[in-house]
Amino acid sequence: MAGIKHLVMAKFKEGAAVEQLLLDMKKLALELDIIKSFEWGEDVMKNDKYSHGFTHTFIFMFDSAEDVAAYIKHPRHVEYGKKFRAGTEKILAVDFPTVIDKIATA
Amino acid sequence: MAGIKHLVMAKFKEGAAVEQLLLDMKKLALELDIIKSFEWGEDVMKNDKYSHGFTHTFIFMFDSAEDVAAYIKHPRHVEYGKKFRAGTEKILAVDFPTVIDKIATA
Repeated sequence: MAGIKHLVMAKFKEGAAVEQLLLDMKKLALELDIIKSFEWGEDVMKNDKYSHGFTHTFIFMFDSAEDVAAYIKHPRHVEYGKKFRAGTEKILAVDFPTVIDKIATA
Repeated sequence: MAGIKHLVMAKFKEGAAVEQLLLDMKKLALELDIIKSFEWGEDVMKNDKYSHGFTHTFIFMFDSAEDVAAYIKHPRHVEYGKKFRAGTEKILAVDFPTVIDKIATA
């Protein structure tokens, strides 16, 4: 699907309620129709030289940059964002229109 | 598609041959059957506070962690990696089995 990806990476604080934050992020993604797809995962390479300490990657897909902007300002996102930031040591985020050069056929 | 994502982010050096590096990466992704899908994009948010200076994101999908390991050691990847590293100021990379919680239906 063509669209714009909102990619977030996190390094959680020691003792953060990671499971709850992950559950609440999933709820948020499922509840907001503006989010077209959501996938995430935890790094298994665990090489700080490459990961820069980030352990989790979250990829949200939107139809347009306008939809990403609307999501960022959405009260549900603002509310969740406060809890997310409180639980993280550092966050990375980029938005990019996705260029699909090769698609899985199986 | 279930699988493992190999995600790479780059901040290119001033004067790096970015277009050529992007073209060669696409060629690599198309040539190697072990790479099941490949997509990439350039950050449009352009907020260093969040991007940590990374401008480009590349997402490769593999069937398994073993396939990622085979790719990393593949002569074509090793060869490309030298050029890529020479052109970048910093690189981020993580590998994560992807959890798909919401799939685009349109």
